[in-house]
Amino acid sequence: MKLGDGVEQSIHCVAVLSGLSAGGVLSAAALAEFHGVSTSYLLKHLQALSGAGILETVPGPKGGYRLAKKPEDISLLDIVLAVEGPTPAFRCSEIRQRGPNPLPQRYFTKPCQIAAAMLRAERAYRAELASTSIADILAELSADDDGGIAARGCAFMEMHERKAAR
Amino acid sequence: MKLGDGVEQSIHCVAVLSGLSAGGVLSAAALAEFHGVSTSYLLKHLQALSGAGILETVPGPKGGYRLAKKPEDISLLDIVLAVEGPTPAFRCSEIRQRGPNPLPQRYFTKPCQIAAAMLRAERAYRAELASTSIADILAELSADDDGGIAARGCAFMEMHERKAAR
Repeated sequence: MKLGDGVEQSIHCVAVLSGLSAGGVLSAAALAEFHGVSTSYLLKHLQALSGAGILETVPGPKGGYRLAKKPEDISLLDIVLAVEGPTPAFRCSEIRQRGPNPLPQRYFTKPCQIAAAMLRAERAYRAELASTSIADILAELSADDDGGIAARGCAFMEMHERKAAR
Repeated sequence: MKLGDGVEQSIHCVAVLSGLSAGGVLSAAALAEFHGVSTSYLLKHLQALSGAGILETVPGPKGGYRLAKKPEDISLLDIVLAVEGPTPAFRCSEIRQRGPNPLPQRYFTKPCQIAAAMLRAERAYRAELASTSIADILAELSADDDGGIAARGCAFMEMHERKAAR
C-alpha cells in the first residue's frame, strides 16, 4: 500500500498557502521551488486541490493559488481524497464469485466479511485523517518552532507573494 | 492509495486453509482454481505468507500449504503486512529539506508534524486490522451461512485436500 508523493507535496503546499496575507497568491513555480519539486508535476496536484474546492485559482500573469477555505476547515482527509481519489485502498474483486463452483447469488447481496473488515480499517484511517486540520498542523509546527521556521516562511513570502486583483 | 489484489486473494486462501482437517494440505493449483485466479501469481503470495510464518509449506508431490498457526492467531494485519510489506503508505521524503532555502538541521531531529499525523492515521488503520482475526471472519461467515457456503467448502475439500506426510 502506497500513497503517491503528491500527498506530501499537497499538504505542504496547503500549509504554506495558509501563510498568505489577504489578497495574496503564490504561483505554482514558487511553490515548486520552495519545496524543490517539479513544477509540472506539482501543477497536477494543485489542480486537483482546486477541483476539490480546497484551493482557489486566480488566473492571469499576476495570478496563482490561495486557500478557498480557512485552514481549520481543511482536513488531511480532504487533501488525501482530492489527490488520491475517493476509492478505498482495498478493492474487493469478489473472488467468491469466480472459479468453477461459485457461490449462489443469494450470498452476494452484501459485501463479504473480508471486504467489510478491510473497509472498517479504512474508515478508522479516514476518521483519524479527518480529525486533523491544516490549522492543527500549523499549531503543532508553531509549538516546535524557535523562530527559524517562521523566519524561513516570511522570507519566502516576501520574495514570492503576489497581490492578485480580487 | 491502493492495496494489491494479492491481499484479497491471500485472506481468502488463509480462510479456506482454515477448513483443512488435521494433516491435510492444499496445493497452490487447487487454491488458484477455487478462486479463479492465476496459479503463478498466487504462488508469489503463498510464498510471502509462508515467509511470514502464517502458512507452512509441505514439499513433495503430495505437498501443499496449511496454516502454521491457529486462525485466531492470524490477524488481517499479519496478512496485509506479509503481502504488501511493512512500509507505511505515507512515505515522508522530507521535502522540508529541499529547495534553495532548506530549514536548518536542528528541525529534523523528529518527524515533521505532517508525517506524524499521517502515521497516526496509519496506526489507527493497522490497529483495526490487528483486531480482526481469521477466526473472527470465519465466525461472521458462519453466522451468515444457511448451509450453502459450508457445503461448497466441503465439496472442494473432498476433491482437493491431500493428506501430507507429517
